[in-house]
Formats: sequence, structure tokens, C-alpha cells
Amino acid sequence: MRDSNRRWHLAARPEGEPELDCFEMREGERPTPNDGELLVSVHYLSVDPYMRGRMRDTASYAEPWAVGDPLSGGVVGEVVESEHDGYAVGDLVTGRGSWADYTVLDGDDVTEVDPSVADLPAYLGVLGMPGRTAYFGLFDVAEPRAGETVVVSGAAGAVGSTVGQLAKLQGCRVVGFAGTDEKVDWLVDDLGFDAAINYATTDDYRAALDDAAPDGVDVYFDNVGGPITDAVFTRLEVDARVAVCGQIAHYNDEAVPTGPRKLPQLIAPRATVQGLLVSDYTPRFDRAAERLAGWVADGDLRHRETVVEGLEHAPEAFLGLFSGDNIGKQVVRVAEAAQSGENTEN
Amino acid sequence: MRDSNRRWHLAARPEGEPELDCFEMREGERPTPNDGELLVSVHYLSVDPYMRGRMRDTASYAEPWAVGDPLSGGVVGEVVESEHDGYAVGDLVTGRGSWADYTVLDGDDVTEVDPSVADLPAYLGVLGMPGRTAYFGLFDVAEPRAGETVVVSGAAGAVGSTVGQLAKLQGCRVVGFAGTDEKVDWLVDDLGFDAAINYATTDDYRAALDDAAPDGVDVYFDNVGGPITDAVFTRLEVDARVAVCGQIAHYNDEAVPTGPRKLPQLIAPRATVQGLLVSDYTPRFDRAAERLAGWVADGDLRHRETVVEGLEHAPEAFLGLFSGDNIGKQVVRVAEAAQSGENTEN
Repeated sequence: MRDSNRRWHLAARPEGEPELDCFEMREGERPTPNDGELLVSVHYLSVDPYMRGRMRDTASYAEPWAVGDPLSGGVVGEVVESEHDGYAVGDLVTGRGSWADYTVLDGDDVTEVDPSVADLPAYLGVLGMPGRTAYFGLFDVAEPRAGETVVVSGAAGAVGSTVGQLAKLQGCRVVGFAGTDEKVDWLVDDLGFDAAINYATTDDYRAALDDAAPDGVDVYFDNVGGPITDAVFTRLEVDARVAVCGQIAHYNDEAVPTGPRKLPQLIAPRATVQGLLVSDYTPRFDRAAERLAGWVADGDLRHRETVVEGLEHAPEAFLGLFSGDNIGKQVVRVAEAAQSGENTEN
Repeated sequence: MRDSNRRWHLAARPEGEPELDCFEMREGERPTPNDGELLVSVHYLSVDPYMRGRMRDTASYAEPWAVGDPLSGGVVGEVVESEHDGYAVGDLVTGRGSWADYTVLDGDDVTEVDPSVADLPAYLGVLGMPGRTAYFGLFDVAEPRAGETVVVSGAAGAVGSTVGQLAKLQGCRVVGFAGTDEKVDWLVDDLGFDAAINYATTDDYRAALDDAAPDGVDVYFDNVGGPITDAVFTRLEVDARVAVCGQIAHYNDEAVPTGPRKLPQLIAPRATVQGLLVSDYTPRFDRAAERLAGWVADGDLRHRETVVEGLEHAPEAFLGLFSGDNIGKQVVRVAEAAQSGENTEN
């Protein structure tokens, strides 16, 4: 165990697309857990699009970071010191901690992970916050019924790829939008999507939708916004439901983005559009995690992680979200197994 | 009873704001009812914003009129010939008929009106389709709870003025947007709105909302769209519900209108936006009509009609909707009481 600790801080608020000089790595002493806390060696940390919002100087659902604050998010790692009765050194846990080599977590706020169900990075993706977001966003907000057509934007991302597969389990026709042929192939060939549209190489999204979703759109799970969403809104069927999970196309906008007005498009189909935050479903997280783990264990729910190697590259991993570098969940590998004593991953 | 019958037809599809030469009055013979039908002397006819959609050459929820078709909508009048067992000459009924002196109605599709509850024009407004739209849009779609703040656009119109009063009955704080001081005074002084904003003389809608709705917006009942809606969307509270009933600001747009994107604004408040069509609630119309009539009879629900005199001015009455000429329901008085034998209105 090293005595020093590297940790990323917000160096400056980004304007538009974040740049590397918005991030600063500081080196300090390894922190010490207080009563009830754990010191965790971070094996993987999560970078997520919503973090862009925390870099703004405006209050929203996630508290803004101050300039100089350490960056934080989902982490999975190994307990290296425990001041909590529930956990011992060597336990593998996930929780919310710093982008750092070591992070102190409240023992009451972590969850033990089972590497026999899935490798550690999956606990930041399909078995973590993105998986739960997909689960509640799809089942509680979008409420797809068997036989309906479900369209997902950002379909090859951590949330979107889970949404599409859950909708397939529900008996729906599933169409995804993704940005590379490799992603499109993964969605259709490996995950069982009925169709996928490469938005980077397709000129006419509406025509592509008419091919891929000939009966129109009953459910739209939106992670992206922008022109994809504009096209989907012209194809909403009666009683359509739109779950607004993310709008990554607009997270770097400095001015309020404009686009085709959508409210006039809602009247004829009596469509419903609803924003969602996964934190609203906290009381039901355990049940969702149990079900998601069951589908993963049964092979009904596949997942993939894009791993950026090394804590020093965490900012690049975050920036990569906005250029669509990731297939599945984007994570950063912080600790080598040998270095931290990890030996349970396989 | 006159032998001839004047009737309005669609002479040309409007481009942008309709003009008078889009309408043509034709004179023909008085029609004759077939078995099961009624010949009705039209006393009042309704002009409604949704009719603009029927003038377009695009399929929507209401079938488009062909050029040359007679114009039609809600009418209230007196039976002058009956081929239906349920109605006799002299009965006062409401249904959907032509913009004409006389119209033939299917006796199974009309409703008898009771002039002791309200004057005949009210059966085209608070006791007609607009009243039912307000009822179902508010109670079924927006679902306001006591203590919530409800904002209504087009608040002095037939639907909006009913929505606001129903929300007051429900124990809400009610704020309306309307376009003249006279309307604003009517909303606050006569209908009991907590506040009303004259959008024509107010520069900063957001600041005005902050004054009128200091706790933010829980429910927005939108009849209008445009900049009012843009402002309200920046003030949505957690769990806000938006009922999209109409978008009159955009009905004359030839291109798809653009504006601030609203989906990114839905996530933090987990807001729900839903389009509505009153026809979805047909099975419950009788119960709604009964309740609305009860509130009117009890003096809890006030109404007002703006009456344009003379069938020859029906197109102007319709055009007036887009310039906000009406306070309450816009109707056209077609028949004089003396001319048609009407003597029950008071």
C-alpha cells in the first residue's frame, strides 16, 4: 500500500466542451478512515455524463463542485482499512468516492460486490447506477408493453444498452441509435436489438426510422437529445411515452439550445414526456440490483465496459463520453490487481 | 322559417394567418332531415382554435377539410323538423353541425340543453367541449393537488378560464397569462385567480412569474405555447405536470417552429409533459357535464361568452381567436330569437 494518494480536482469550470486543463491531479497523503468509515483502494472509477452538470456554477439535482473540489463518483475497490464492523480488509465494495488511488467511504453507504456474478467494472455499469437508471427509467417511466416499438438513443452506452435488452425481455421491438458501425453491430448481433441506426453515417433519421420502426414509436428512451430526438418526435404513436434520461448532446452548450418545438407534436398522439432521476427510486435499489444480477447471471443481459487504463487518464475518459469513445460503460482502471492485492476478479 | 340556407365553405387553404378569402358563403336550399335526423335552426355556432388544423392538408386527430367542404363545429339551436323519436320541434339541442342557418344533425349525436342552467352560448363553452377539455385536462392529465401552484396560458379563453376556476376549487394557487388588462382584471376580480399577467405589456415573463408564483410552478396548463411556455418551463418544480391542450401561438406557422429546447429542462424537476385530446374522455362526458353544470348553477364556476353577431361574420369570429379578441368563449349568433321562435333564453 502506497503512502501517497493521487486525486483529481476541478481546476476550472469548463466553457463548452471541457478541456484537460479543467482538471488538476494533486498528490497528498493517503487519507485515514474515521469511526464507521473504510479506506478503499480504488480499482475502477466511473465517469458519467451527468458529471458535466456538476462542473457548472448552477444548482441542479447534483450539487455543483466548487473550483478546487475533488472530483467524485462511483468507485469499486478493495477495503484496505476498516473502521466499520460490517466490512473487513480485503472486502470488495462499491460506493461513491473520489477520483483517486484511495478514497474514504462511509461504511453505511457502500455495497459489497460479488465478483462471481460479474467482473468489478460491471458494478459501475449494468450492476451499478446506469443499470438501475435503465431499469427504473424503462419500467417505471416508459412502461413498455409487449409488442410495442421502443427506440433508444445512446443505445451503445451503459444505460442505453441495458434499456434495449430489458425492452427485448419485455417482448418489444427495439431500435437503437449509435455512432459507429462497431456499436451498431454489437447492438444487433450481440444484444439482440431488432435494428440499429448509425447516426454518424445516416443523413435522414426519419427515413431510417421509418425503415427500422415501420409501426412508429411507442416508447422513446432518450439519453441524447438533438437531431435524433427531433426525428423521433415526428414518429410518436398514440399514447407514446418518452423517458428523458439524459441529453448529452446539450451538456456542453453554454446558451440554452434551440430546436424544433416539441409541445405541438404531443397533442395528436397524446404523448407523455417525463424527466427521470434514478435517485428517486432509492428505496427500490436492492430489488432492482437483484433482478439485474439475475439477468446477467442467466446470460439474458449482456454488458461491456470500455476501460481506460490509469488514474492519470481519468479526464480523457470523461471527455471521451462526449465524443462517444465508449462502448458500454466507460470506466477508469486505477489499481493493478497485484498492486492492491486484488485477486478475486476473473 | 326561411327556405334558403346560408352556409360557409372552405374556399382555399390558408397559408399562415387565415384571411377572409379562405372562406366562402354559399346560399342553397334548406336541407331536409332523413330518418333519425333533426333539422336544427342554428342559434349559435362555435369557432375554436383547433379548426385551424382542419384547414391544413395533413392528417391529424381531426380530419382535414377539403377545399370546398362546408365548415362545421359545435352548434346550439332549436329543432325545427324532427325525424327522431327523442326530439320534438322546439327542443333546444347542441351537437356538431355546419356554420349555417340550418343544419341537419343525427338525433343520436345531439344533447338537449337546459336554458335554466345557463344561456345557450354557454353550451358551446363552459358546458360544452371547452369546459370538458378543461375538466379532463386538469383533473386527469395535470392532477393538481391542494396547495400547488397552477399556471394557465390563454387564461381568459373558454378553456383557460374554466381550468383556473376548477384549480381554485381544488385549493390551488392559480396564475393566468392573458393579453389585455380587461382580461387580467376579469380573471382576478371576477374569477378569483390569485394573479394574472398581461403578456402583452410585460417584458420579462420569468420575473413576472417569480412575483406571481414565488414557489414555482407545479402544474402548467398550456393553451398557447411560444414565449409564455418558454418562461414557465424554467420555473417547473419537482414533479411538475404540464398538460398540453393547445398551442395557438403556433397554429398559423407554416414551418416547424423552433424555440428553446425543453427536454433538458425536464430532468432536474422530473417533470411530466402530456398532450391531451378531449375526445379520449368521451365515455365520461356525461358525468363531467353534470358536474360542470352543478358548479355553474351553484355560482362556483363563472363563464363569459364573446358573441359576434351574424352568420356572415363567422370567419371574422374565427380569425379573432388568433388575435385574442375574445374574452371567454367566442361564439357567433346566427339566429335572432324572434326569427327562429326561440323564447327560452334568458
